[in-house]
Amino acid sequence: MPSDSESIVLLSMNVSIICIGNELLSGRTLNTNATWLGKTLTEIGCIVNKQIVIADDEESIVKTLNDLIHGNNECVIITGGLGPTSDDITRETLFKYVGTGSTFDSEYWNILSERFKKIGIDIPESNRNQALRPEVGKIIDNPVGSARGFRFKVGKTVIFSLPGVPSEMEAMVKSSIIPWVRPYVSQKVYTRTIRTTGIPESALIELIDGPINSNHKCEIGYYPSLSGVDIRITSENDKKKETLSNTLETFLGEYVFGFDNDTLEEVVVRLALDKNMSISLAESCTGGLIGHRLTQVPGSSQVFKGGVVVYSNYAKIKILGVDEQNINDHGAVSEQTSKDMAQKVRSMFSTDIGLSVTGIAGPDGGSKLKPVGLTYIGLSGSNGQKVRKFNFGSNRINNKSRVSQSALNWLRLEIANG
Amino acid sequence: MPSDSESIVLLSMNVSIICIGNELLSGRTLNTNATWLGKTLTEIGCIVNKQIVIADDEESIVKTLNDLIHGNNECVIITGGLGPTSDDITRETLFKYVGTGSTFDSEYWNILSERFKKIGIDIPESNRNQALRPEVGKIIDNPVGSARGFRFKVGKTVIFSLPGVPSEMEAMVKSSIIPWVRPYVSQKVYTRTIRTTGIPESALIELIDGPINSNHKCEIGYYPSLSGVDIRITSENDKKKETLSNTLETFLGEYVFGFDNDTLEEVVVRLALDKNMSISLAESCTGGLIGHRLTQVPGSSQVFKGGVVVYSNYAKIKILGVDEQNINDHGAVSEQTSKDMAQKVRSMFSTDIGLSVTGIAGPDGGSKLKPVGLTYIGLSGSNGQKVRKFNFGSNRINNKSRVSQSALNWLRLEIANG
Repeated sequence: MPSDSESIVLLSMNVSIICIGNELLSGRTLNTNATWLGKTLTEIGCIVNKQIVIADDEESIVKTLNDLIHGNNECVIITGGLGPTSDDITRETLFKYVGTGSTFDSEYWNILSERFKKIGIDIPESNRNQALRPEVGKIIDNPVGSARGFRFKVGKTVIFSLPGVPSEMEAMVKSSIIPWVRPYVSQKVYTRTIRTTGIPESALIELIDGPINSNHKCEIGYYPSLSGVDIRITSENDKKKETLSNTLETFLGEYVFGFDNDTLEEVVVRLALDKNMSISLAESCTGGLIGHRLTQVPGSSQVFKGGVVVYSNYAKIKILGVDEQNINDHGAVSEQTSKDMAQKVRSMFSTDIGLSVTGIAGPDGGSKLKPVGLTYIGLSGSNGQKVRKFNFGSNRINNKSRVSQSALNWLRLEIANG
Repeated sequence: MPSDSESIVLLSMNVSIICIGNELLSGRTLNTNATWLGKTLTEIGCIVNKQIVIADDEESIVKTLNDLIHGNNECVIITGGLGPTSDDITRETLFKYVGTGSTFDSEYWNILSERFKKIGIDIPESNRNQALRPEVGKIIDNPVGSARGFRFKVGKTVIFSLPGVPSEMEAMVKSSIIPWVRPYVSQKVYTRTIRTTGIPESALIELIDGPINSNHKCEIGYYPSLSGVDIRITSENDKKKETLSNTLETFLGEYVFGFDNDTLEEVVVRLALDKNMSISLAESCTGGLIGHRLTQVPGSSQVFKGGVVVYSNYAKIKILGVDEQNINDHGAVSEQTSKDMAQKVRSMFSTDIGLSVTGIAGPDGGSKLKPVGLTYIGLSGSNGQKVRKFNFGSNRINNKSRVSQSALNWLRLEIANG
């Protein structure tokens, strides 16, 4: 069983997850923590037996812990209820459950106070409970927030308690739990996710139906979303996983934009850096989303020089210099305007590539000839201007997302092949 | 207790949810079903006690059902495991659990066969188990798919079994479960969410500690995120909920930006429409995110005229016309540059308000004097230019999110008070 002093190697580790929070039970908050933990723990070879969501309620917490500790779990991970407010009772309940007293950690309190001072706030007294240190068990440092976590051992089970804020919980799992789990998990599971975009799930499956019918000895999962389909390959045999992955990659060709945690915007920035190409954007219906996505990537400033959000005809004409006649003759959402926008933004920012989008995001503003969802993406490069026409759906938010995905994907292909 | 023949009125109904599926445990699929059920059931007055995710495994299903049925639940809703494939064992397990035999429903089989024929497929034999009808219990029709659901009563608890495909599950809850629950839930629960931004959770609680110590007879929950803190008030008494909400609103003042499902960007667009004010943006470190958020709102084109993403000094100087001397003397991330950007974009787009952001998003590019996270937000209006300085953290993605939130919040206050 896992503990600091023992070194028995488990084939795998059975883990259960408890997520504490009324906001999860009442559906106010989507439980992304359970999903993230499930994925992360499975990937390093754990078996996730159970995910349980319960209220911030002492009796529920105690009963659930009793059940899980007497079950088949080497490890129980609790998230939530470590905040400074009175409804956050996990810390107190857990200390009572494992039978530990606590001391006030004035060193940590000083660190916390300094942090608050930096953002110009006197630290509230209610944060004091976050500086409590249990007499048994260990503290888990929180690299990004104020609520530290805990590790206890009850019988054969190790309990981790972590905050419910996703960024804090994830950082603590990476820095503290994964390194602790690894030595106990000898049965490695190999996975690869092939990330595709630009092809619907059913068409994708038809395309690879041949290669995946062979004796590949892997598990394959398909995860479609608005922005594409991820194919996840899992195997206990690294080589078999590699072989299948390579086969699928060959058959899927340019639909594959990356692997595992790659994002499309990262791939675009990476390619542009490699090829030393600069990008500018003229966004209409996406309102800045494409620029936002590119600038999520560290180092993007080396390739993304900027853009204009031309959310009115005035802006298209006066600021970007789009030909007014084009807009009058063909409309702001047209092949001609899109081309013109791409060319003008490229020259305005003196970049290698200028990309433009213009469309009818919805829910209003459509017509029979130009329905909601109609979008033109224009691309201007050293070989002139090109335009693609898309017909997306009627949901404004989905439209913007799909337009940005198609635009970034075209950028990717253009830079890769250019 | 709820049953067809009894008519005792419950104050509320205690419900637990079981989601069955390995893909949920391993984090391959986000459990939106639990969230949707939690929200839908809470809204009609149920209390959701527990959400449990378990594997497609007979022993786990039986043990979990035993626990919940001997617990405090009038109703247990199961999702998943009703498909035609061999790993879908919920139907068989449940029939065994309640001790019912089954008959083959050839009428339903014919309906299914016809449906498959329509889409050009011979119905696979594996679908035959979907035509099984239990001898006790009731069938729940599936208006959108092939897997029908079931209703059983065990002791005092009514068990519903539904498919895991979200669209099918949701349709069946709406057509069968909600109408069944309603008569038993006489006690309506009233909720209001007060949405705040610009104040950390602990400081917020100190501010309202007085008013919430009084005898308000409501439940209060705090839901902090990167962008602010939501306060959720729940009560069985509409008036008490209103009273507390009004008190808190008074004490929180301008930290409150909206209620319930309001988003900050919606509030900004709504206010700007009311006051007939137009907005333009000069974004540097946010790369387009603020424009993206504003344009998520239908009708935003009436107030948002556009912006420039000036992600390089070249763009700041050549396109926006920022004074090069300012950048040389004070840097691109400075009070002076921020002011200049706001003023220039306002005049460029001829808008009532010009807003600018310039900062060091990270992870690199910081210095001792100007650390990662340092951000200036500038605002230019009819009364001149103003600048605010912020110190956010070191995480690039969080920085961008917080900058956009602070900028939109300032826009809100400026338009409301202007």
